[in-house]
Amino acid sequence: MAVLTRNQEALIRSLATRHGRKESQYCLCDGPRASHEILTLRPDLVEQVILRDDFILRESLPVDPVVLSAKEFDRIRNTVHSQGILLLVRRPEEIPVQEKIDAPFVFLLDRIADPGNFGTMVRTARAVGLCEMWLTDGTVDPYSDKSIRSASGAQFSLRIRKHGDLTATLGLLKDKGFTNVFRTSPACGCNVFTEEKLFENSVIILGNEGGGVGDAPGSKDLNIPMPGDAESLNVAQAATVILFEYVRRLGSNV
Amino acid sequence: MAVLTRNQEALIRSLATRHGRKESQYCLCDGPRASHEILTLRPDLVEQVILRDDFILRESLPVDPVVLSAKEFDRIRNTVHSQGILLLVRRPEEIPVQEKIDAPFVFLLDRIADPGNFGTMVRTARAVGLCEMWLTDGTVDPYSDKSIRSASGAQFSLRIRKHGDLTATLGLLKDKGFTNVFRTSPACGCNVFTEEKLFENSVIILGNEGGGVGDAPGSKDLNIPMPGDAESLNVAQAATVILFEYVRRLGSNV
Repeated sequence: MAVLTRNQEALIRSLATRHGRKESQYCLCDGPRASHEILTLRPDLVEQVILRDDFILRESLPVDPVVLSAKEFDRIRNTVHSQGILLLVRRPEEIPVQEKIDAPFVFLLDRIADPGNFGTMVRTARAVGLCEMWLTDGTVDPYSDKSIRSASGAQFSLRIRKHGDLTATLGLLKDKGFTNVFRTSPACGCNVFTEEKLFENSVIILGNEGGGVGDAPGSKDLNIPMPGDAESLNVAQAATVILFEYVRRLGSNV
Repeated sequence: MAVLTRNQEALIRSLATRHGRKESQYCLCDGPRASHEILTLRPDLVEQVILRDDFILRESLPVDPVVLSAKEFDRIRNTVHSQGILLLVRRPEEIPVQEKIDAPFVFLLDRIADPGNFGTMVRTARAVGLCEMWLTDGTVDPYSDKSIRSASGAQFSLRIRKHGDLTATLGLLKDKGFTNVFRTSPACGCNVFTEEKLFENSVIILGNEGGGVGDAPGSKDLNIPMPGDAESLNVAQAATVILFEYVRRLGSNV
């Protein structure tokens, strides 16, 4: 049975802080569901597995685990509802922006601030079989413990890429042939259910919860019709509508 | 300027507990966004408005507010990020199940347990213009403070009805002519994007986060195609797909 080194314990503590996460090549994954995803998708990234001694493990592990008493476990991991398993994981390697984009359209999150929304969008992307997601500067850390919990670890199934702010990212994507840029907009624009070129060499941008999508010259506004009188749809729900419209169109072409 | 009576203060405290809520004809609404909704949609239900003295009010009020110092306000409302406005609201009257159902289909939540999921579904229902929602016994309290916060008060725009468990509810709805019953199912069933009778005198059931929809003899399984390899979609995302498929079909008939 492995023992937690002082360095690992210090690392885990520092990863609970924003500063510590920013500086680190590691991230933390808490709880059985997200842990199962990571152990299945990317066991190669798992540095250490810490178990509470009453935790019933269902997976085989890539490393010899550290087993702690409930008291010791809670001391390490300061959560109220500690769930008995904690992974110390290396962050996935950055995907070079030069590499080929393996998707019919680019799903781009512009300064999404809420890890809950981010996680929902990641899970939905995974459900529809999208393998790529792009983020602009200012979007939440995709590997913070909140993001991992909210996405149930599904971000480890995606190629997540970043290339600066919205202008820089769109410039790069245009050079790569993604020339139809759609910017979600609550009020007007082309209709998500009828726009023909929505998923053809396109970039679909979902924007910040408060401020929406930043300026994107040459882009088209994309509207999700809302017969009710809500002001606007939560960004994760908007993403769900768009991603499943893609699935619907796939169906009629198969 | 009004003063908070001892009875009102005791009521507010008791509404912070599950037991207190269950016994009460009142509910609490916290924060500017949900308060704005309730003040706009149902000012007739607002019993008392409690403001922190630095809160900038944008609405006209149906009652003379109680204004408190930050310290007094926080003492009343024990939240970490108190947002300066708190409403004491009478629960909406129960809608008799005998009354006519003013919707092309019945959206039925079967033992949805998470107020976050409930709130997302309520907001989405409002966005698509659905005016009714039915709940089975065991679904979260639609007027708990968590439900109100998560739905941003949108439940006050809906007619929410209950008639016992799933079997009893489906029996009643069948008698009312809602005979096509669809039960969301992760694995198989008719396709949400092609099923012709999905919104015709139908009941669409969304089920508990862990256990899914209960038994519903005579129902059809309804499937949301997922080309990716996610186990199943979060129930609020499934609801979003279904409700916006309704909007999409409306569009082609207008």
